[in-house]
Amino acid sequence: MTTTENRVRSASEWLTTAREVAAELAVDAAERDRKNETPYPEVRLLKDSGLVTLLGPVEHGGGGQSWETAYRVIREVARGDGSIGQLLGYHYLWAWAARLVATDEQIAAVEELYTRNNFVFGGAVNPRDSDLKITEDGDEIVYNGHKSFSTGSKISDLTVLEGVLEGTEDHVFAIVPSEQDGIVFHDDWDNIGQRLTESGSVTITDVRVPWASAAGYVDKKFHPLTYNTLNVPAIQLVFTNFYLGIAQGALETALTYTREHTRAWPYGGDDKTSAGEEWYILEGYGDLQSKLWAAEALADKAGTAISAVLHAPREELTPQARGEVAVLIAAAKQRAIETGLEIGTKIFELTGARASATKYGLDRFWRNLRTHSLHDPVAYKRREVGAYALLNELPEPTWYT
Amino acid sequence: MTTTENRVRSASEWLTTAREVAAELAVDAAERDRKNETPYPEVRLLKDSGLVTLLGPVEHGGGGQSWETAYRVIREVARGDGSIGQLLGYHYLWAWAARLVATDEQIAAVEELYTRNNFVFGGAVNPRDSDLKITEDGDEIVYNGHKSFSTGSKISDLTVLEGVLEGTEDHVFAIVPSEQDGIVFHDDWDNIGQRLTESGSVTITDVRVPWASAAGYVDKKFHPLTYNTLNVPAIQLVFTNFYLGIAQGALETALTYTREHTRAWPYGGDDKTSAGEEWYILEGYGDLQSKLWAAEALADKAGTAISAVLHAPREELTPQARGEVAVLIAAAKQRAIETGLEIGTKIFELTGARASATKYGLDRFWRNLRTHSLHDPVAYKRREVGAYALLNELPEPTWYT
Amino acid sequence: MTTTENRVRSASEWLTTAREVAAELAVDAAERDRKNETPYPEVRLLKDSGLVTLLGPVEHGGGGQSWETAYRVIREVARGDGSIGQLLGYHYLWAWAARLVATDEQIAAVEELYTRNNFVFGGAVNPRDSDLKITEDGDEIVYNGHKSFSTGSKISDLTVLEGVLEGTEDHVFAIVPSEQDGIVFHDDWDNIGQRLTESGSVTITDVRVPWASAAGYVDKKFHPLTYNTLNVPAIQLVFTNFYLGIAQGALETALTYTREHTRAWPYGGDDKTSAGEEWYILEGYGDLQSKLWAAEALADKAGTAISAVLHAPREELTPQARGEVAVLIAAAKQRAIETGLEIGTKIFELTGARASATKYGLDRFWRNLRTHSLHDPVAYKRREVGAYALLNELPEPTWYT
Amino acid sequence: MTTTENRVRSASEWLTTAREVAAELAVDAAERDRKNETPYPEVRLLKDSGLVTLLGPVEHGGGGQSWETAYRVIREVARGDGSIGQLLGYHYLWAWAARLVATDEQIAAVEELYTRNNFVFGGAVNPRDSDLKITEDGDEIVYNGHKSFSTGSKISDLTVLEGVLEGTEDHVFAIVPSEQDGIVFHDDWDNIGQRLTESGSVTITDVRVPWASAAGYVDKKFHPLTYNTLNVPAIQLVFTNFYLGIAQGALETALTYTREHTRAWPYGGDDKTSAGEEWYILEGYGDLQSKLWAAEALADKAGTAISAVLHAPREELTPQARGEVAVLIAAAKQRAIETGLEIGTKIFELTGARASATKYGLDRFWRNLRTHSLHDPVAYKRREVGAYALLNELPEPTWYT
Repeated sequence: MTTTENRVRSASEWLTTAREVAAELAVDAAERDRKNETPYPEVRLLKDSGLVTLLGPVEHGGGGQSWETAYRVIREVARGDGSIGQLLGYHYLWAWAARLVATDEQIAAVEELYTRNNFVFGGAVNPRDSDLKITEDGDEIVYNGHKSFSTGSKISDLTVLEGVLEGTEDHVFAIVPSEQDGIVFHDDWDNIGQRLTESGSVTITDVRVPWASAAGYVDKKFHPLTYNTLNVPAIQLVFTNFYLGIAQGALETALTYTREHTRAWPYGGDDKTSAGEEWYILEGYGDLQSKLWAAEALADKAGTAISAVLHAPREELTPQARGEVAVLIAAAKQRAIETGLEIGTKIFELTGARASATKYGLDRFWRNLRTHSLHDPVAYKRREVGAYALLNELPEPTWYT
Repeated sequence: MTTTENRVRSASEWLTTAREVAAELAVDAAERDRKNETPYPEVRLLKDSGLVTLLGPVEHGGGGQSWETAYRVIREVARGDGSIGQLLGYHYLWAWAARLVATDEQIAAVEELYTRNNFVFGGAVNPRDSDLKITEDGDEIVYNGHKSFSTGSKISDLTVLEGVLEGTEDHVFAIVPSEQDGIVFHDDWDNIGQRLTESGSVTITDVRVPWASAAGYVDKKFHPLTYNTLNVPAIQLVFTNFYLGIAQGALETALTYTREHTRAWPYGGDDKTSAGEEWYILEGYGDLQSKLWAAEALADKAGTAISAVLHAPREELTPQARGEVAVLIAAAKQRAIETGLEIGTKIFELTGARASATKYGLDRFWRNLRTHSLHDPVAYKRREVGAYALLNELPEPTWYT
Repeated sequence: MTTTENRVRSASEWLTTAREVAAELAVDAAERDRKNETPYPEVRLLKDSGLVTLLGPVEHGGGGQSWETAYRVIREVARGDGSIGQLLGYHYLWAWAARLVATDEQIAAVEELYTRNNFVFGGAVNPRDSDLKITEDGDEIVYNGHKSFSTGSKISDLTVLEGVLEGTEDHVFAIVPSEQDGIVFHDDWDNIGQRLTESGSVTITDVRVPWASAAGYVDKKFHPLTYNTLNVPAIQLVFTNFYLGIAQGALETALTYTREHTRAWPYGGDDKTSAGEEWYILEGYGDLQSKLWAAEALADKAGTAISAVLHAPREELTPQARGEVAVLIAAAKQRAIETGLEIGTKIFELTGARASATKYGLDRFWRNLRTHSLHDPVAYKRREVGAYALLNELPEPTWYT
Repeated sequence: MTTTENRVRSASEWLTTAREVAAELAVDAAERDRKNETPYPEVRLLKDSGLVTLLGPVEHGGGGQSWETAYRVIREVARGDGSIGQLLGYHYLWAWAARLVATDEQIAAVEELYTRNNFVFGGAVNPRDSDLKITEDGDEIVYNGHKSFSTGSKISDLTVLEGVLEGTEDHVFAIVPSEQDGIVFHDDWDNIGQRLTESGSVTITDVRVPWASAAGYVDKKFHPLTYNTLNVPAIQLVFTNFYLGIAQGALETALTYTREHTRAWPYGGDDKTSAGEEWYILEGYGDLQSKLWAAEALADKAGTAISAVLHAPREELTPQARGEVAVLIAAAKQRAIETGLEIGTKIFELTGARASATKYGLDRFWRNLRTHSLHDPVAYKRREVGAYALLNELPEPTWYT
């Protein structure tokens, strides 16, 4: 796990690697959540494990894996630490941003760049606030503005910028080095969960990008494909998978606690001698585990579906196929959220009063999931699925659907 | 769909056939539920469609399909009529009973018999009441007694008997013609759901079976394998699949009703003109659909798992593998029950007051699912999953786990 | 319980009477639900018990009780038979219709009439379909049209008519004898629940009413008060109470069944000998009972609140006070519905498989509650409470809020 | 609110006082939760408001109020700050400890002492660990040992000790000054919720109490009454009420946030301009508010019931009456927990992503409720109610039932 030299490994070997990373992260996850320090060592761990270039081309030392595997890897890592799972998942999506919108040459360049250098991506994309403006200056475009949330920030090597070109409604993406004078990260992410994701605000001042690097632009024009809009379903399933990882982490941490610490209730009128004889504990864990398995199974199905689409030729994707996978992902996301929150809450009843000590940090799972699952209203995700079921309507591609 | 001549078809073609059968069954399912008549025409439909011999050997005209497909077929058929889905599912299990416990010769004979003749199985197995006694009479064994529940009964061509050999604790299975003097079906199944399953009681009087037909007995001795005990997880997943089919039927019937009949609520303070604009209807359906997809995904995963085990060499099955698949199925069953009952209840809020008219029979889904899901206490299924998660305990093979 | 001569009794004595009536109704409620015959004997029982005139003036032989008591009585009666609880509750509201809108003279006349004669009211009011027209003919008004639902119909002595006066938007209420040529009940109520409520359609042909009997009209003009609009919250709390009665009936019937018939699960790995030792049964009943007590407590609070308002001078009622009590009732109604449906569904898991036999009719509670709770969308009730909590908005008086 | 001089006030005036205290506490509750400092100023506020002596005798300057009012006051204060609500509620129970077990003279002395001095009680009672030993030394008894949890500790003026007399199974209660050499509070309460309750461990070294002050002991003998065992239901309803206060605080804080900050979702396909037009927000709040009202109504009913019992002559209390009120409280507690946790979780979906910023501390409600509701397993509370419903069993008086 400590080599950066990626050998060709099977999907199942990558999952093993991910589990090892997760196990290492889990050791002090509660403590790190409290300390809330920039996760340099954790990102180092991701790089050393090879997971950062899981999706990168084999010829440049990448894993050459599919998104199906990437989603499982995100889930595994999030099991150990939800924040790090999110960082990795966002990174995968940004690393794929070129494939989503760029030209073949740009894709080749970006993939070589990040894979050979084992670079991690961050992103200053927060579409709800259109606050990054782009002006044109000859062969260059210039980004200026402020973004409220930029996940990754200080731990990233590359940053994906997104803004609107002055005088147009065109969104332009570009990938730039994170460390430059024009990018100032404000280190102001202080939320109740996913605390190590470095999701604070960023100020962009005169960051210049050659027109040639404006993703997908040829002669300053963009030729849209349905495939470009896969970013939203793809990232929504990234969310879903680190939610599921968080939920798994919660359940496993609680199970371990119960095995090691929880006592039978001495006032039950019988002579139980261990927590494992308490009906309510067995039934309670069985209920949570069953629900989690169901949520995972749906996420797996969605992962298979979108992976097929993401790896197929870009021109082939139809709005119908894009819409159907988006609906499936909307459903999977809801189930992950509802299930994960229930697990994050109920585990306490199965571990007992002393498990509420701060040192165990058993509340971090609920806080992590609760925080990120607010990204966009889950009620609208239910509505999307309902509109499809009732009216055969597909979600229109927007920044959130 | 009207030929008994089975061509070799793909799994996907068989699912199409199942969907066609379901569509035909759905037309008057509500009416047939009320009339509660022995489902001879419906069983005829199953036979004519070829579905009865789906698992039968190709050389005898069977479909030669896997259990994975069989489970999907059960689900599809139950979408149209829960009772008929149950009859088909039970039939598949009884048709597999020989493989579970019999000798190679017995298996070959049984499979040829039922496949060539397109025979349907019923069963008089109800282990909770050990009320069928077997006595020995030379080369024959003789069954006598009364069983409270025997699904299939009058519509079956063959009946699986199960009893305990006098003076021993050995259970002996045998397959006999349903139509014979010694078997009297009492036609006394009158329950609130799954009304067409002919699950009434049966009296067995001096039904004689050659020792040579006692499934799995060689020289009057039985050599047990873990594989023998797969009947319980296999049938529990049969249950799960017709529960899911019932739930799908409920959801689809309601969606159609809403599209065709439900009006927007005129007192909402806005000017909605159709039910499809009601937020609560869209969100409500989205919630139910998402939950159902998750439950289905878990059942599919369990189906793949047990199918692999059922079709592998019998000797290879370990208690560990058997236990793990049983736990997965226990989880899938719970999710199907909880989800299906919620769907059966909530659809009314999305269709509206007039949908409670008896003629629509929209309550049959809840009644069907509620009735059969009492087969064994679902709380114990939760506990099984919990004991596995917490204590790494596998369910001990019994008649219910 | 068999006297029509009303003595002055305390509220608590009336509740005892109601419980006795319920006990008598419960004996064959399942059977009567199946037979679906016009409930003449049950209405006779209500009359003989004195409950019909519970709210009637003491000087005419009535009980002179408050609405607070009436709501509890409705709940008690519905415990024995949901349909009969509904009939009684609707009757109380119609019997109060005069107080809601009529003049003092009209009130006095109506109350004397129904109390002295022990008359039961039915109603042909179904505001969503404005299909009863009124024309004027000198000193009389003439009703014509068709109503889809008229609860009570054939068992009623008096019918409350409601229609719109031609050329106006004025709704005019009048009370007329049910038995007359111009009123034809079509006996077409055939729904999955509340089967004995005689809620079928009615055709009204030339039913003439003196202008002097047009409720609340003086010189053909109506002088509206906020008090007039109390019919909706008052009837919504009637609903709530018979829902709660149905839920209580479900729980009690199940508890009795479990005590008498349910066996311990023999495959639990321990040596339980009775259902009362099953943790899941004890915890399950405890959960349902607790939820029901909470729903009842809220309904009681709402009952106290609206009773105070209903019995205060009519002119004093402000829109604010009316709105606040309506919101409280909207909340109570939701809780009754959600709780009752859960009870109607879960009791089966606590009674076991054999409790699904049709003869026990244990599904009638779910069917009864499910059917009537569709009267108006419960989602809108949640929204009303939310609009009050968030925006301090009161529900505008309509036919449903 | 700033006078310690208690005038005679009505229950409703006391509730106003409590609401004023809560409003003051709410201002910086999130900040104080993070700082986690000993709540001296908050306890000062309770003292100055007069709430500390709410139950104290009027002749000594106390409020002379009933427990019914005390429960409502606890709930109101917890609305502003769950920890302070808990401290006040525990104080009331300890202040009543004398009445529960002591002699008339002891009661008179204790009530005068604490009322005149406006003293606050803490308690070192944690029955699950029997780790405080009492030895006899002439006319004195001497406490020694260590308690894991002692709510109040450093902010208390008086401490209730409880231990077992050497060589017996007799529990002996005594009230002693908190500030003395023999009592060392270890300041080690560091849990995820109810952080300001000073519930850390305490070491008791040679704390001497005259036999004459051993509560309820006359000539070194205790004469038990059923009334002595009311401490458990009484404190369980204290819990219930501060849980409800926490839930109210959560809901109100969220409602205010939504009004002030939450924006309509811009991708909904319509032109909503405020959060108050979002159906899911209105319905969501309506659902939570309705559930909370139901839980409160049940707690009020339980409060009325136990208040009647607590204020009646001690000798009159029967085990039956004690058991029934304990069951009612067990039900109320469950409903408060389940409802409060749901509110603490769902409010985030109604406020939106930015509400997860640490500065709002919106997670404290869930953390507070989650932490304390683990005091004893809520599953056993459901079981108690179920055992009563099914078997007519009353909970045997123990330290938890």
